[in-house]
Amino acid sequence: MPSTDLLLTFNAGSSTVKIGIFAMDGAAARRVGKGVIDFRAEPLSLGLAKGSQTFAMPLKAEVTDDLQGVIDETFALLADHFDMTAARAAGHRVVHGGDRFTKAIALDAAAIDAIDALTSLAPLHQPQALRFIRALRHLKPHLAQMASFDTAFHATQDDLVRRFAIPRALHDEGVKRYGFHGLSYKFIVGELRRKAPRAAKVVVAHLGSGASLCALNAGVSRDCSMGFSTLDGIPMATRPGWLDPGVILHLAGEKKQSFREIEDLLYRRSGLLGVSGISADTRDLLRDARPEARQAIDLLTLRIAGEIGRMAATLNGLDTLVFTAGIGEHQPEIRAGVAKRLSWLGLAIDKKANAANDFTISTGESRIAAHVIATDEEQVIADEALSILRAD
Amino acid sequence: MPSTDLLLTFNAGSSTVKIGIFAMDGAAARRVGKGVIDFRAEPLSLGLAKGSQTFAMPLKAEVTDDLQGVIDETFALLADHFDMTAARAAGHRVVHGGDRFTKAIALDAAAIDAIDALTSLAPLHQPQALRFIRALRHLKPHLAQMASFDTAFHATQDDLVRRFAIPRALHDEGVKRYGFHGLSYKFIVGELRRKAPRAAKVVVAHLGSGASLCALNAGVSRDCSMGFSTLDGIPMATRPGWLDPGVILHLAGEKKQSFREIEDLLYRRSGLLGVSGISADTRDLLRDARPEARQAIDLLTLRIAGEIGRMAATLNGLDTLVFTAGIGEHQPEIRAGVAKRLSWLGLAIDKKANAANDFTISTGESRIAAHVIATDEEQVIADEALSILRAD
Repeated sequence: MPSTDLLLTFNAGSSTVKIGIFAMDGAAARRVGKGVIDFRAEPLSLGLAKGSQTFAMPLKAEVTDDLQGVIDETFALLADHFDMTAARAAGHRVVHGGDRFTKAIALDAAAIDAIDALTSLAPLHQPQALRFIRALRHLKPHLAQMASFDTAFHATQDDLVRRFAIPRALHDEGVKRYGFHGLSYKFIVGELRRKAPRAAKVVVAHLGSGASLCALNAGVSRDCSMGFSTLDGIPMATRPGWLDPGVILHLAGEKKQSFREIEDLLYRRSGLLGVSGISADTRDLLRDARPEARQAIDLLTLRIAGEIGRMAATLNGLDTLVFTAGIGEHQPEIRAGVAKRLSWLGLAIDKKANAANDFTISTGESRIAAHVIATDEEQVIADEALSILRAD
Repeated sequence: MPSTDLLLTFNAGSSTVKIGIFAMDGAAARRVGKGVIDFRAEPLSLGLAKGSQTFAMPLKAEVTDDLQGVIDETFALLADHFDMTAARAAGHRVVHGGDRFTKAIALDAAAIDAIDALTSLAPLHQPQALRFIRALRHLKPHLAQMASFDTAFHATQDDLVRRFAIPRALHDEGVKRYGFHGLSYKFIVGELRRKAPRAAKVVVAHLGSGASLCALNAGVSRDCSMGFSTLDGIPMATRPGWLDPGVILHLAGEKKQSFREIEDLLYRRSGLLGVSGISADTRDLLRDARPEARQAIDLLTLRIAGEIGRMAATLNGLDTLVFTAGIGEHQPEIRAGVAKRLSWLGLAIDKKANAANDFTISTGESRIAAHVIATDEEQVIADEALSILRAD
């Protein structure tokens, strides 16, 4: 019996790449396995999960700029567990689609160049996805490749919401608020449709090491806290979120810091790590008794609550709040901290349901419904890739 | 009969200085006249008001770095209308008091040096006030001089609210949210105490060519939209307010703009002027039929409403909204635009009262009270200076 065709997804972050292995069953993409390559590990390692089995395999390949050795070896290791001869397609998460890409696309040479041309808008994120796309194109030319964009889900936002109060010429050349984490928000919209169909004015808090909030009206994106770059919005593991532009002028003008120093400060030394001086990880901070740890957590919940207040003004109302991604799905203390600061909106949390990470964590009397939903960006990449394949 | 002792106030902005002439009647400072020097005019001119009379007088003095010629001539012109031999004291508005000055002070050489040492925190604002202080000290050494700080009113804010999510070492050396327009907010608190004593959780919108919002709980500052520099918060005449820090990295890194170009962009070419491409003045924009003008106004009201939502989260509630300063006091369209975006909070505006700039512009049914209050920063400078004089 021939194998079911396989579809692979690649979700390349700054330090890891998550690989999804999906079986193409008719119109549906069904996950059959997943892997992760951790680029911080030495030697490089591939973690793999298939059903209830997990494997950890060291990689021999060196990390080269084109990543071809790593990808070649990864495919060979995957072949020990999956019928890689059945692989037909690969879908990639690409952070930035600019104004040009407002939905997923099939990748050809011209499209890859167009994605590359957007690198200046996401200089730290776009190159890694491009490396995977180009290496696969070289090593596995028979695979159909597709790209899903983090920004695309937010194309529905009003022009006004996307503006900064800067000269129009800059806006027109692309300095505007695009929004990110769109694949996650798209997944959450699907889940809400099934599980909470009456949710209308919704804020989703995608809280991972990168984090943002999205304001939805009837499932459509109306605002996102992360706008032009991946620095803005709420505090993250090592990024600051909201920052007075005068701080950067002060660092450059008064403290004579270089562009590279400031970039390093904002991407790698700020956020929870910067405030606590202890850790970028909320799990460490919640366990730590020092006041600096508590302060970092409190600043996070203060800023999330404030941003939800701002977004309620964009939506002119709020009826539902959703927590998702690593922190959002698994850390009741963070959710409780945010909810406490929103009691003025009539939000009340059920302690027991919150502690259990239940789907509904608000009380029956709460004027705002609060839910916990596990997100799955790779499922969206697979679904989008499959729908392009099937449309051909 | 000897003249009543006079007290002068100096409120030095970037392009004008407002002068207040007050009679010291016992414990009260009563305004008897006011003047303004417009540094954009050529030749320089002094506008003066005494009772219902107004005068406009050209100045012959050149603008030198120490401003001594201008101040000397100004005093001579003031002497034609007021008994300047009765002048006993001068109070100055100083934008930045850092962490050191949390209330008004008497100025001596050491205090002036300490204010100068804060110039790096307000490089575009602090020097002008220092010029007036030093010139007066030189020319009129018999005058007692006092300083009132824009930041001082916000010293009550929680440490958490004042933090950015940046390394603690930067916070500890002063990179934090200080808050501005404190003299205006202090005046408004006094007015609210008299006219709306039940107001508890209040947001005051000080909307001038510089603009900010302040969250008050029982008359005490809990948050301010303008934080470390005068760039942050809501869009202003030529400053952007909220801006993704990645925009500055993009301008410096990808567009190779210099520090000076970026500073000029953010202080002088952004805000309403940048968005509209037409004018920095809301009066021009409200009269202009072009969509770009409408867009600038709409962005302003969107961002003000969003910031009010954020501040309601800081306060955990909101019962009163106050509009003040030039735009806030005189432009019903802007107030209506903000209020419309806050209807979800139960704010309803009485059209007629709003059009008339009445004290109360909310309807009887509105869940949030909305007021229009004329601010008077010079009165606060005079009151603070007088209370220091009387305490000696």
